[in-house]
Amino acid sequence: MSAEASSRPGKASVSTVAIVGGGVIGAGWIGRYLHRGADVRVFDPDPEAERKISDVLANAETAFEMLYGVAPVKGTLSYHSDLADAVAGAAIVHESVPERLDLKQRVHAEITGAAGPDTIICTSTSGLLPTKIQEGLDQPGNLIVAHPFNPVYLLPLVELVAGQQTAADVMDRAAKIFDAVGMKPLKVRKEIDAFIADRLLEAVWRESLWLVKDGIATTEEIDDAIRYGFGLRWAQMGLFQTYHTAGGEVGMRAFIEMFKPSLHWPWTKLMDVPELDDALIDAIADGVEEQARGMTARDLERQRDKNLVGILHALKANNWGAGTLV
Amino acid sequence: MSAEASSRPGKASVSTVAIVGGGVIGAGWIGRYLHRGADVRVFDPDPEAERKISDVLANAETAFEMLYGVAPVKGTLSYHSDLADAVAGAAIVHESVPERLDLKQRVHAEITGAAGPDTIICTSTSGLLPTKIQEGLDQPGNLIVAHPFNPVYLLPLVELVAGQQTAADVMDRAAKIFDAVGMKPLKVRKEIDAFIADRLLEAVWRESLWLVKDGIATTEEIDDAIRYGFGLRWAQMGLFQTYHTAGGEVGMRAFIEMFKPSLHWPWTKLMDVPELDDALIDAIADGVEEQARGMTARDLERQRDKNLVGILHALKANNWGAGTLV
Repeated sequence: MSAEASSRPGKASVSTVAIVGGGVIGAGWIGRYLHRGADVRVFDPDPEAERKISDVLANAETAFEMLYGVAPVKGTLSYHSDLADAVAGAAIVHESVPERLDLKQRVHAEITGAAGPDTIICTSTSGLLPTKIQEGLDQPGNLIVAHPFNPVYLLPLVELVAGQQTAADVMDRAAKIFDAVGMKPLKVRKEIDAFIADRLLEAVWRESLWLVKDGIATTEEIDDAIRYGFGLRWAQMGLFQTYHTAGGEVGMRAFIEMFKPSLHWPWTKLMDVPELDDALIDAIADGVEEQARGMTARDLERQRDKNLVGILHALKANNWGAGTLV
Repeated sequence: MSAEASSRPGKASVSTVAIVGGGVIGAGWIGRYLHRGADVRVFDPDPEAERKISDVLANAETAFEMLYGVAPVKGTLSYHSDLADAVAGAAIVHESVPERLDLKQRVHAEITGAAGPDTIICTSTSGLLPTKIQEGLDQPGNLIVAHPFNPVYLLPLVELVAGQQTAADVMDRAAKIFDAVGMKPLKVRKEIDAFIADRLLEAVWRESLWLVKDGIATTEEIDDAIRYGFGLRWAQMGLFQTYHTAGGEVGMRAFIEMFKPSLHWPWTKLMDVPELDDALIDAIADGVEEQARGMTARDLERQRDKNLVGILHALKANNWGAGTLV
């Protein structure tokens, strides 16, 4: 290994990675590994996959250059028409196919059949239980949830969840790989639907759907309520530390005392689930078009990445939170 | 007005502000106005109020200097032992007393009795309905909710909510004042409990309490799930624009299609409310102490402010979101 290679930012400790499914999440994984020097082997039956992945990788490369101030020293990217061929020889596999249990089970039967005995096999599922995906697999022991967040090439969080049949050392071995590519692996203690982050996101999503459906707020007003307010707090401290900090001299106990009664007030409509009918879908889809002011989703991706890099640099300057991983 | 004064950052368009209640929120309001040149008159019966407010103002002044690179040109701060005396002559009054309806009603009867006919009277309530607070007031017409976010001297969001008896022009007149002190006034279309932001925050708070209570995650793990993941997204785009951006080429409609089924999965425990018993309070309060690694709440305040300034500068460099108000 050359001196240049060993000093490059966030160098991966794995040499070969396989990606099964190259949508927004799969392509994000590719960027995360490829730009840190790993060889990445891709299987995606979509005939448009290579073009779509290339678009994401162009954004990911720009983001890497903004983040580290240097061009990435890339590994080799290869596309394979056969899943077993893509998986062969990989140290870690990431499956990012659509969120259907039967599909995931079928794909993992293929992956585990082709992978080596030490290959770590990850599913990017945002909420399905790994134990369910493991059902019916001949070799379920290396399977784990590694749930990343879009854009995967920039956001550090990855939630790790073991299933009942996951071997004891897989979580730690996976965490080591994620540490080496600048991520923040969060080992989830118990296996529950939607893990941690998506529990919180789903609660906000449901509440927000009500606000739109009931005509309380537009999508833009809800977004503004977040990004001009508590979103700025949550980029650097989370929920609890923010409230602890807001509790004045006494801290969290004072905060809880103050807001304890509101737990019993009707401050949420989450006792019920809104129906996502056409009218609500239109209100949301038209709302985000309106607030984009002519920017396409691709334009917004680039703007988002530029903003994320700026925030990560700001946190790095303070040696705090996600900035410590840059 | 001197040339120096007219060129200073975020100069207020009001000359005199009255603050009733100088806790974390009230003191934050003082910093927001005072450091933009307004004279601020304070009423708070707590004998410790002046000392506590001074601590917050020291932080606010440091934050202002970091944000704008210059020292604030301050207005005059005065403490008054009589509420009517504090309120007399103020263009706008902010009430930030504890969240008890009877107390708010009593205080607003005093405020409206002492205020001029054009004085805008704001309550900082995080969730009480302005119509309820207006009940029984002789002059309810100038009362409005102006709900800010801690730290008020740095976070721009302020939710404005009119009550049934609020006069037609009060919301617009208030919005103009908040614009002039670098805030983002969000006019809430309908009067509902907890408005917009606190609906979302309450949903996350309740879900998080369950995660701690059920032993799924510690407070630190939940905070990490936020600040290494979606918190970074929410500082710059909100919920809907983030998902629109994540929908790939098709945008929001693709995203909704993909995640529509999960609305009917058991991805939240919010059909029920956790009891905040001593064991849960201990788990939370001990958890935040542990994750603070010896930093006091005051230390954390300063760190938070430094981080917020960094994020605001990063967004300003991109001419985006909250950065456009700096």
